[in-house]
Amino acid sequence: MNHGYSADKDAVLARLKKVEGQVRGIARMVDDDTYCIDILTQVSAATRALENVALLLLDDHLDHCVRHAAIQGGPEADEKIAEASAAIARLVRS
Amino acid sequence: MNHGYSADKDAVLARLKKVEGQVRGIARMVDDDTYCIDILTQVSAATRALENVALLLLDDHLDHCVRHAAIQGGPEADEKIAEASAAIARLVRS
Amino acid sequence: MNHGYSADKDAVLARLKKVEGQVRGIARMVDDDTYCIDILTQVSAATRALENVALLLLDDHLDHCVRHAAIQGGPEADEKIAEASAAIARLVRS
Amino acid sequence: MNHGYSADKDAVLARLKKVEGQVRGIARMVDDDTYCIDILTQVSAATRALENVALLLLDDHLDHCVRHAAIQGGPEADEKIAEASAAIARLVRS
Repeated sequence: MNHGYSADKDAVLARLKKVEGQVRGIARMVDDDTYCIDILTQVSAATRALENVALLLLDDHLDHCVRHAAIQGGPEADEKIAEASAAIARLVRS
Repeated sequence: MNHGYSADKDAVLARLKKVEGQVRGIARMVDDDTYCIDILTQVSAATRALENVALLLLDDHLDHCVRHAAIQGGPEADEKIAEASAAIARLVRS
Repeated sequence: MNHGYSADKDAVLARLKKVEGQVRGIARMVDDDTYCIDILTQVSAATRALENVALLLLDDHLDHCVRHAAIQGGPEADEKIAEASAAIARLVRS
Repeated sequence: MNHGYSADKDAVLARLKKVEGQVRGIARMVDDDTYCIDILTQVSAATRALENVALLLLDDHLDHCVRHAAIQGGPEADEKIAEASAAIARLVRS
């Protein structure tokens, strides 16, 4: 099945690969006894990168799944909108 | 003109009234030289209350404006979805 | 008793006054049926302003209460540091 | 040189290892065309896990580096407190 992020799949995968590398780099800094504040700067950067992946996935979800469900109408439209709202709330509160 | 939050207007206004009271209460605590940590607890609570107002407004926006625009189609649908995405990003980053 | 924010008391109170005005302005926008996205922009701005008040109070807390307690030593130093950590966690998660 | 997180080094490394696995799992979900909302749930969980690593590092920093610098006094104490405040601000805003 095709999802909202299909067109951006390569971009999403490339960003996740980058975040994985950032997290591995942070572990190396901890292992090397790097100064705490310098590690924290990298943790903030990785957190922001992950949030940006979430925002990209959410954009695609609104642009495809929610839009299509709204056009189809019926209970599936309500469900998709409720799901998107819940995902946004989790993101804002995380 | 009617907006997404029309049905929830009284609920949104009641919540904002409560946040306004929370902020006034925090100012009183500062004025009374209350212990910093106790003030910070109230600032976190008011921040969370404001975020919840934002999430309620956003739910209504998806449920009404975005849904209607998607059904109508055309450039307005694209515009409404892009606006919602930008508002979500501002919220997640604030 | 004097707290960390004593020197910044007027600045903190002025910022809180401004946030209170922002929240009242948002209520007026809702009452006037302003477009949801424009309201959300103002809610994000007020949320950020409240976070900045929290960061200012926290700076002062570290700079005064935590610093003094550390110099004094004893169980109060541990307590102040644990309190500051808990306040930071509430702030990051809100 | 010893840093604040020395005692917790193994715990921090174990958590980072887990976050790395979560991010790799998310990439696999994207590759397998998993439903967007299910991916977003995992991205929120990984973001929260990274924030918890940051909070642990920050606790250790206050408990060791800031405490020691405060006891020593002098310009280094001011510097450590200013650094901690800046790191907290980056974390709250990310």
